[in-house]
Amino acid sequence: MRVYNFSAGPAQLPLPVLERAASELTDWSGSGMSVLEVSHRGKDFVACAADAEATLRRVMGVPEDYRVLFLQGGATAQFAGIPLNLTAPGDTVAYLNTGQWSAKAVEQARAYDLDVVVVADEAASSYTTTPEEGSFSVPQDARYLHYTPNETIGGVEFGYVPDAGDVALVADASSTILSRPLDVSRYGLIYAGAQKNMGPSGLCVVIVREDLLGRARTTTPVVLDYTRMSAADSMLNTPPTFAVYLLGLIAHWLEDNGGLEAMGERNRAKAELLYGAVDASDFYTNPVQERSRSWMNVPFTLADPALDADFLLGAQAAGLTNLKGHRSVGGMRASIYNAMPIEGVQALVDYMTDFEATRA
Amino acid sequence: MRVYNFSAGPAQLPLPVLERAASELTDWSGSGMSVLEVSHRGKDFVACAADAEATLRRVMGVPEDYRVLFLQGGATAQFAGIPLNLTAPGDTVAYLNTGQWSAKAVEQARAYDLDVVVVADEAASSYTTTPEEGSFSVPQDARYLHYTPNETIGGVEFGYVPDAGDVALVADASSTILSRPLDVSRYGLIYAGAQKNMGPSGLCVVIVREDLLGRARTTTPVVLDYTRMSAADSMLNTPPTFAVYLLGLIAHWLEDNGGLEAMGERNRAKAELLYGAVDASDFYTNPVQERSRSWMNVPFTLADPALDADFLLGAQAAGLTNLKGHRSVGGMRASIYNAMPIEGVQALVDYMTDFEATRA
Repeated sequence: MRVYNFSAGPAQLPLPVLERAASELTDWSGSGMSVLEVSHRGKDFVACAADAEATLRRVMGVPEDYRVLFLQGGATAQFAGIPLNLTAPGDTVAYLNTGQWSAKAVEQARAYDLDVVVVADEAASSYTTTPEEGSFSVPQDARYLHYTPNETIGGVEFGYVPDAGDVALVADASSTILSRPLDVSRYGLIYAGAQKNMGPSGLCVVIVREDLLGRARTTTPVVLDYTRMSAADSMLNTPPTFAVYLLGLIAHWLEDNGGLEAMGERNRAKAELLYGAVDASDFYTNPVQERSRSWMNVPFTLADPALDADFLLGAQAAGLTNLKGHRSVGGMRASIYNAMPIEGVQALVDYMTDFEATRA
Repeated sequence: MRVYNFSAGPAQLPLPVLERAASELTDWSGSGMSVLEVSHRGKDFVACAADAEATLRRVMGVPEDYRVLFLQGGATAQFAGIPLNLTAPGDTVAYLNTGQWSAKAVEQARAYDLDVVVVADEAASSYTTTPEEGSFSVPQDARYLHYTPNETIGGVEFGYVPDAGDVALVADASSTILSRPLDVSRYGLIYAGAQKNMGPSGLCVVIVREDLLGRARTTTPVVLDYTRMSAADSMLNTPPTFAVYLLGLIAHWLEDNGGLEAMGERNRAKAELLYGAVDASDFYTNPVQERSRSWMNVPFTLADPALDADFLLGAQAAGLTNLKGHRSVGGMRASIYNAMPIEGVQALVDYMTDFEATRA
């Protein structure tokens, strides 16, 4: 008996992927071993990892002059990895601050003797907005412009790719990657924790343009050194093998279901359905500026917060789980990643309508 | 049809653990969700992680003044994490070099502006020995003495706990942890990648004495900052949830099977059986000094290396897998971690005897 799971991450995964993983967890490909038990340097796992990378590249349309790295430590480790790999002490770097995750990235960068320029800061809006396109300017001596296309906590998303001029654009795409087509060539570096649209926690994918390699500081921990990791096919040390295997299964699931074009259409329809229900009611409110609304994470509040607990209890009973909002925002949050079918969003909307009718 | 899998890591896991994980991979504890899909901050997973830690503490007898951290990046990430957390620039640190893993730890430490003193170096023996007890002296102004109790590649193991005087003893226990009882109170810090005796790859357990916290350098990536990670119960960011869950299952499996005393007896018997067979034959040779032989990783060579490929093919056909030695050592390597039953070692010994009889 599966539920509709609106967790912000780790998040719902495609059922066929979980069923496949369960069916071969004690005997993978007739080897008599689990994929959890095989050497990362054995030919079977090397082929598995190569297939995961190749399929991800096809699905995303990653150009040939980009490397795809499978790292650990979540996106948070890359908050350090990015300045360590792309800058020297004294350099200038630029950040857009649109939420708690970009703020953490800024804070970590300040540890590395840099001139950290926050070129747009939406904190004053309690992170309910994104800067208007063209409203900020990027210092052209910056090593990179970092931004967070989708903020998981605030449910705030950029509706455009920022223009950084000649400066390398760096994106923490953890909660938006694979949700729709993306022009990778606009970016210098894209990174994403896997635990939303790509698989389980414990894997961070880094997609980096080759010309940005080769300048890591000597103090970079080797596991965060993109150049050394790239030269070793992400196997400088033991990678998180099970997470890489699941990423491959999910990339194939995406390909079998129409790729990112189809996924983008589904996700747009899901978001429109849910925001439509929120906007049609005086009982539910979404705090985010309309043009900045996330397709993936939809926070909403009830007119009377005293009803929050009842709302959550009833939702749980209806098979709709993990709807409690982030503690810093309150209310509810429905995360509707790729694996959430539109039927799940419809079930949530139906429940919201019923709850409002009986309790408002 | 399961095989006996002698992989050095990721390595064979207890079948009951894999069967349990497979049986609940789409519906964990009746939640309608996989353990892969739940928030690390939800009460179910928080309880799961707390139980994994508590069970590991019971099994190992970890004293109360030690913290247990669940980190990422493998032991290799801690090659940087240890100097970053325990030293200031200009400090002295001491290392015992007994193999490729300790050599990598030394190399990484040299990146952090330290006086790195290698107090014993076994490279001249091609890493087939450990220093004799009492044969080296540790500078008493060193911040720590680092050593590798068991070297996975060379199959070399310390038969004693080095005396570091008042200097904190730091151990990379990746390939020996949980293989027998260990007096944690002798150590300042013990760390281990999970993928040998503790679970899948992607999780690194750090056990650190509290008085060593609080001195991380400001340049420490936050995911490697033991003090901050400890304050956040290892959930400063999303932990590798599935690996933590499996660690808990394995800790319970250990407890249900007699704990580390029983495991130590089993492992001693397994090692004696295999070394006995090697020593009884002129056809097989183990290169390691007798008192330094590993219980976990047993390299051995055939008298005629031209027979290596046939040996491996026959072994595979007999359901004995992953016996090929590390490329730097050659020959064979049988890793016989906790999950390898003595029946598996007996099957290997029988196969070795047959092979010698027909091919020598």
